[in-house]
Amino acid sequence: MGNECRLERDCVGELEVPGDAYYGCQTLRAMNNYHITGIPISHYPRLLVALAYIKMAAAQANASLGLLDETIARAICRACEEIVDGKLHDHFVVDVIQGGAGTSTNMNANEVIANRALEIMGHEKGCYDVISPNTHVNMSQSTNDVYPTALRIALILEIRELIDAVVYLREAFEAKGVEFADIIKMGRTQLQDAVPMTLGQEFQAWAVMVGEDEHRLMEAQGLVHEINMGATAIGTGLNAHPDYARAVTEKLVELTTLPLVLSPNLVEATQDTGAYVQLSGVLKRLTVKLSKICNDLRLLSSGPRCGLNEINLPPMAPGSSIMPGKVNPVIPEVVNQVAFKVIGNDLTVTMAAEGGQLELNVMEPVLGQSLFESINILRRGCLTLADKCVRGITANADRCRELVENSIGLVTALNPYIGYERSTEIAKAAIESGRSVYDIVLEKGYLTSEELEDILKPENMTQPRFFHR
Amino acid sequence: MGNECRLERDCVGELEVPGDAYYGCQTLRAMNNYHITGIPISHYPRLLVALAYIKMAAAQANASLGLLDETIARAICRACEEIVDGKLHDHFVVDVIQGGAGTSTNMNANEVIANRALEIMGHEKGCYDVISPNTHVNMSQSTNDVYPTALRIALILEIRELIDAVVYLREAFEAKGVEFADIIKMGRTQLQDAVPMTLGQEFQAWAVMVGEDEHRLMEAQGLVHEINMGATAIGTGLNAHPDYARAVTEKLVELTTLPLVLSPNLVEATQDTGAYVQLSGVLKRLTVKLSKICNDLRLLSSGPRCGLNEINLPPMAPGSSIMPGKVNPVIPEVVNQVAFKVIGNDLTVTMAAEGGQLELNVMEPVLGQSLFESINILRRGCLTLADKCVRGITANADRCRELVENSIGLVTALNPYIGYERSTEIAKAAIESGRSVYDIVLEKGYLTSEELEDILKPENMTQPRFFHR
Amino acid sequence: MGNECRLERDCVGELEVPGDAYYGCQTLRAMNNYHITGIPISHYPRLLVALAYIKMAAAQANASLGLLDETIARAICRACEEIVDGKLHDHFVVDVIQGGAGTSTNMNANEVIANRALEIMGHEKGCYDVISPNTHVNMSQSTNDVYPTALRIALILEIRELIDAVVYLREAFEAKGVEFADIIKMGRTQLQDAVPMTLGQEFQAWAVMVGEDEHRLMEAQGLVHEINMGATAIGTGLNAHPDYARAVTEKLVELTTLPLVLSPNLVEATQDTGAYVQLSGVLKRLTVKLSKICNDLRLLSSGPRCGLNEINLPPMAPGSSIMPGKVNPVIPEVVNQVAFKVIGNDLTVTMAAEGGQLELNVMEPVLGQSLFESINILRRGCLTLADKCVRGITANADRCRELVENSIGLVTALNPYIGYERSTEIAKAAIESGRSVYDIVLEKGYLTSEELEDILKPENMTQPRFFHR
Amino acid sequence: MGNECRLERDCVGELEVPGDAYYGCQTLRAMNNYHITGIPISHYPRLLVALAYIKMAAAQANASLGLLDETIARAICRACEEIVDGKLHDHFVVDVIQGGAGTSTNMNANEVIANRALEIMGHEKGCYDVISPNTHVNMSQSTNDVYPTALRIALILEIRELIDAVVYLREAFEAKGVEFADIIKMGRTQLQDAVPMTLGQEFQAWAVMVGEDEHRLMEAQGLVHEINMGATAIGTGLNAHPDYARAVTEKLVELTTLPLVLSPNLVEATQDTGAYVQLSGVLKRLTVKLSKICNDLRLLSSGPRCGLNEINLPPMAPGSSIMPGKVNPVIPEVVNQVAFKVIGNDLTVTMAAEGGQLELNVMEPVLGQSLFESINILRRGCLTLADKCVRGITANADRCRELVENSIGLVTALNPYIGYERSTEIAKAAIESGRSVYDIVLEKGYLTSEELEDILKPENMTQPRFFHR
Repeated sequence: MGNECRLERDCVGELEVPGDAYYGCQTLRAMNNYHITGIPISHYPRLLVALAYIKMAAAQANASLGLLDETIARAICRACEEIVDGKLHDHFVVDVIQGGAGTSTNMNANEVIANRALEIMGHEKGCYDVISPNTHVNMSQSTNDVYPTALRIALILEIRELIDAVVYLREAFEAKGVEFADIIKMGRTQLQDAVPMTLGQEFQAWAVMVGEDEHRLMEAQGLVHEINMGATAIGTGLNAHPDYARAVTEKLVELTTLPLVLSPNLVEATQDTGAYVQLSGVLKRLTVKLSKICNDLRLLSSGPRCGLNEINLPPMAPGSSIMPGKVNPVIPEVVNQVAFKVIGNDLTVTMAAEGGQLELNVMEPVLGQSLFESINILRRGCLTLADKCVRGITANADRCRELVENSIGLVTALNPYIGYERSTEIAKAAIESGRSVYDIVLEKGYLTSEELEDILKPENMTQPRFFHR
Repeated sequence: MGNECRLERDCVGELEVPGDAYYGCQTLRAMNNYHITGIPISHYPRLLVALAYIKMAAAQANASLGLLDETIARAICRACEEIVDGKLHDHFVVDVIQGGAGTSTNMNANEVIANRALEIMGHEKGCYDVISPNTHVNMSQSTNDVYPTALRIALILEIRELIDAVVYLREAFEAKGVEFADIIKMGRTQLQDAVPMTLGQEFQAWAVMVGEDEHRLMEAQGLVHEINMGATAIGTGLNAHPDYARAVTEKLVELTTLPLVLSPNLVEATQDTGAYVQLSGVLKRLTVKLSKICNDLRLLSSGPRCGLNEINLPPMAPGSSIMPGKVNPVIPEVVNQVAFKVIGNDLTVTMAAEGGQLELNVMEPVLGQSLFESINILRRGCLTLADKCVRGITANADRCRELVENSIGLVTALNPYIGYERSTEIAKAAIESGRSVYDIVLEKGYLTSEELEDILKPENMTQPRFFHR
Repeated sequence: MGNECRLERDCVGELEVPGDAYYGCQTLRAMNNYHITGIPISHYPRLLVALAYIKMAAAQANASLGLLDETIARAICRACEEIVDGKLHDHFVVDVIQGGAGTSTNMNANEVIANRALEIMGHEKGCYDVISPNTHVNMSQSTNDVYPTALRIALILEIRELIDAVVYLREAFEAKGVEFADIIKMGRTQLQDAVPMTLGQEFQAWAVMVGEDEHRLMEAQGLVHEINMGATAIGTGLNAHPDYARAVTEKLVELTTLPLVLSPNLVEATQDTGAYVQLSGVLKRLTVKLSKICNDLRLLSSGPRCGLNEINLPPMAPGSSIMPGKVNPVIPEVVNQVAFKVIGNDLTVTMAAEGGQLELNVMEPVLGQSLFESINILRRGCLTLADKCVRGITANADRCRELVENSIGLVTALNPYIGYERSTEIAKAAIESGRSVYDIVLEKGYLTSEELEDILKPENMTQPRFFHR
Repeated sequence: MGNECRLERDCVGELEVPGDAYYGCQTLRAMNNYHITGIPISHYPRLLVALAYIKMAAAQANASLGLLDETIARAICRACEEIVDGKLHDHFVVDVIQGGAGTSTNMNANEVIANRALEIMGHEKGCYDVISPNTHVNMSQSTNDVYPTALRIALILEIRELIDAVVYLREAFEAKGVEFADIIKMGRTQLQDAVPMTLGQEFQAWAVMVGEDEHRLMEAQGLVHEINMGATAIGTGLNAHPDYARAVTEKLVELTTLPLVLSPNLVEATQDTGAYVQLSGVLKRLTVKLSKICNDLRLLSSGPRCGLNEINLPPMAPGSSIMPGKVNPVIPEVVNQVAFKVIGNDLTVTMAAEGGQLELNVMEPVLGQSLFESINILRRGCLTLADKCVRGITANADRCRELVENSIGLVTALNPYIGYERSTEIAKAAIESGRSVYDIVLEKGYLTSEELEDILKPENMTQPRFFHR
């Protein structure tokens, strides 16, 4: 029986649907229309779960307002629960990038739910006179409120997980900040030797840098909480019961336990995609920081002999078949590439947002796809960087101290003790002779080795200090 | 006398400086090095004012800590006041895009202030043994804390003005929202006729859309309030008095009356440019919205005969020499172009932020230039759009209503009254015959003309409504 | 047997590899390291085929130079043929985005080929003393010449298919250009009515626009033909036989039948990714044109009653559950979204190219992934647009003509016959009265209806013409 | 007299124009409308010259076709010659970013030329009944053919100058390639020590990299040669004499001595901006390469003590007031920032090109501005980089050789002589002991110091070589 086809029809015409498919003819039409990425919407399971919650909330709201038969509402809800439980994901088959502002995704959900609800009620699939994907499952709704609301719910869940990954990475940097607190090293500006600092300060700075974006992500997430259920086609709520918008939003808050709020201006909410632009901008900010940090990690671990060689990244793979012993900074490298994708996606989001016209932004499917992709690879990038790189980093403390001691930048710290003139004189002598500032100071007798040791103690070099001239 | 040159020297060598120039040899060197944009930093006067405030605050803090002679401090402050008053702007001559992480800008300020302070004290320009640009004017400072702090102060002032412009534009949309509250028109999704709304709702939605970004700008501004004075070279505060960072920040708050705060981690603050990325992302968000709205304005005013022709933009210029009577939507067009520049600048900001390495982001000059340019053209864009377009828009109310009455989308509103089947039947008949839904409904006798009028009243069509089935 | 594991080791340590896997421990290590996109390199089968051709060519070149045993070379070639035939694709499992500059992809190929070649020779998998992934399969090679060469070969094949799709789309536009040659319509500039043209000219222009990019793609493809086999690690060819580079290139040309050429400067070729930037730039150019055309198609088909309604796109799906009879321009919409992705990917390519350092661009995996993705979705976009939209477009000839006849832009064409003053007078009268230029001209008796008909003939309005004043 | 105003009028109304202004009321209107960048079109003098050539060519073509009075044509031509000679640039006052698709720029030219021609003929400014900006100066033209043609002519001249700068920079790299041909140094991949090369090869690679883009620029320039004079409003040539397009193009080729060609499809040419997108893509490619090279220069000159320190950039400015002796890589830093601007502008170009609609791309002003800016700063960047950095670079040959001799990567070169096993053994011993491969090989007696010297000769290490196993 399952192998046979059933005939369905919509306003475009008739179509044969595989007998065991829960989706119907509009979904099939979309499958035929959109061969773009080859990746179905089931690739983002949280979008499916979000759709299920919405359809459930709508059915309950409609039933409570006396608009939908209780039996049908219950069957719809049971079908939705199965989606929440991941049982019907294989039937969500339309391409993630699609025309129609998400209508195909919405209809895919409506059809799957209608057919599964029909079965639950003891009917055959396709008996749309009993439960219609449009009339019943989509009651009081429009793609234009359902689809953005579903995107937003799914995004909130994704962002939460991303924040967890950022916290995890931040903590990895913090732990190294503590571990390396006593390792003095040369600070560099413009790639030129500057003044000393501790390696712990370096890692601590990265922790702070990344940690700030936990707050930025939470702020951006706040904007995503605003939904437009009840807007119907363009935000005027045409054909929706005056109490419906509030009712469906309440149900949705209850089901998802998310702090969703109904937008105060539904016409605006239906056409504006500013929340996505803001979110994407914050993802870009986070990824720019990660890329900068990875560039630094690669610089500091460069070598082993012909580079800076201040730290060692844990070896994750043989670096080269042709060069014995070579180990490469492969994890920071992959995180840099994640950054370039996220930044590219931010541009896609920007253009898609700009491309919206009048009462609706029809480009929402690519907005959703780009945001999901960015959040996913960013999250994995954070976890990978923490687990396979940061946590295994070791320091070459002797090398770090040796570079400081041999550096000319050291003279800066001597300024308050021996004066700017003598400092300059020593700097010149060091550059010309190739000798160390340390040796020259001792030789000249400006300071004793005890004094020098004192000045160059990490706790003295790496924070403001009272000094006697 | 002023025409003669004076000889100055720095660690690179000697250089002849024009006798009447307040800047010195390092500025001159920078002028020779950077012929890039041809636009000097005086193009952004607020940056100069910010630098003056910083130098003044530093002099006062240093004097209060007993590090700087009171007389010199007073002379420096008087020179700075002249900059605040705009009297020395012509002496800020280095190119806005420069290497060296802003050192040339900082030294331009140090030299101008030193030479002017020397004059104030009765000395000749160039007597750097009395007041040195480095030792005195730049005391306890580094380009790496002065330059980002100056950028931030200037940006805050610019953002405030931008917010004012956004408010002004939002109010222009709101006024039209009220004016057009009773004009019923067709809403469109995907450029296809959807369901009716009022023209007032359309303008009100734009007001809300733009208005939200007043808050986003304020949030982004908040991040910019965090400064790193006292960080010196890399954030460790090397060679700065332990009480200096707090002291100079307090003085700066006093002088600027801005709610500046000292960053809790100066190492992080000296290398991170996340605040600029966030700000640029918000500017991009605002401009994306403006571009979308301008696209809509151009669509709605398309015609006069072969377009939508729902609204008239005020004619600002003859549209064509070859086509008599043509008037073009030139103001929205220029705002679209502003958007493309701002979005391009956001990419520049992104790449410059990502390009920072280790303890400092050397790309700050281009970050500053891009942000100043974006804020400026956005602000002008908002004012231009409000004054030369939105405020003069008139509606073609008859045309708007005629389109609604002739539309097929009308049947959607009839659904609750005559049922989905009859609606569909009428839609089909209308498409095939080319006749209006209105006429067909009356002809078929489904509703009286009074009932139809009632259903199609703006207040009934454009918000949810109780109906009797 | 196949279920048991075998123990493999590399310089990082030991690892258990599934017994039936052709890949080895380095591949397994990469699988563990890179959980980024979740998409394995087998998603781009042409990359695998390209790798197989390279390994085959190298084995043959090495054998012919007496460096590799003939029996081993033959076994390697047979294993490679199986990859070309698609038999081993499931064993290419590393993530498309990876660190290590493609080393994991290269080692995945080396290991699969070594193990399959071992079986072919009657050995067990893992007997690397007989055939080693490094010593034999990778002989005279480095990831740094193999990986970019493989990307290039795969890209050439992809570009060829894309060009076919562009030709197909161009021909679809051309056919409509012919079909609509006699339909006169209003041309629009700045969305305002301009002067008449034919609908055929509109489609013909799009055909030319798209057709030009066939040439641009071929030019960009030309740059991709340059390969760097024999470069080994950094382009100096260290450890490669002096005759090897030329020999392997010749073999590769023979096997692939592609016009590959050896780069004249292998050091440059190993670090430069300019060919990818150029290719991506051309893809962006093509997609910008497609997006512009799709915007136009959506404009011209807007309506049906409240828009321009000059053409009808074939209905591909019901447009709305809530609005009866609505059909949306879903195919142009999806192509717009393709454009936004391709433009985003171009930014990714740009940043990845800029991120290369010294002797190698380590970001090549994301360069490859982005280019493959862009070419694929562009190709599908072209075919989808041609088949599911352009070929089914019909014109509303009467509506088109009616708009022209009612337009004020008509007066422009009358200039040479009745003079600029009378034209302006008529334009004004038409705007004020709402009447047609046509009627007013006839009423005023400036021209007879025959003369007007003559002037407004498509062949007269839509190209330069001799006229008597 | 010059101080008094004259009254002018256009279809929007009357306006008082300063008596000494050559521009007229439409220009004044545009000045009032567009306060965006504050930068007038005279900032790009080649655009003015191009406009003058076009107006001259049109006047001559019109006269030769008997459409324009000879005396008027001659006066127009003389006024145009004055523009070519730079005498009237101050009268080109409209903002570079403007609405109206360049109409304001075109009218600025028409009005300046008309008024100056009137004076030449002995009339007062403003006597437009004798010579009208529209009827005479703009005869047979439209902004829609004049403006893009002017942009193209100006761009060609700019590109030529840019190519000269690229040649100059390429030659600077080549000279260093020769100078440093014998300096052996360590090659690096993924920032890890790889195998030896010469410093000359490094500079030579950069020369080739940059040199390739001379050809890409010439190709892109080729596309810009195609112009659309005679298209008038939308490419149909309405109201233009059938022989005019060819005639004006010929005159323009004659006057400019540029190989301009008339587009074969003027409808396409009037709406398509693909040539700009291609050109911008090539500018981006060039700038990506320059940025990559500058990143490398900064890496190789990092130090002096705590970095790679292989080369010295010429000191251009004191690096720091606080750190004695610090000299920074300021020139590469500014070129990196140029790159970020050019890449940002490429995005602006992309979005502006995509934003074109139907028969015209109204965003051309921002396209032009962005391209001019990019070409200008790129050209200056190339010259600055060559003169103030590359030509003054010196090598630290001893440091370079020392790094090679101490490196572990050296073992790769020994593979063919002592075998892979012994190489690996030595690599391990070197890493563990911190000693040099050189010493260990000698100690173990695997090779004599003569043999080692021979293997490590630049000519042997840095190209493929015959070896006896």
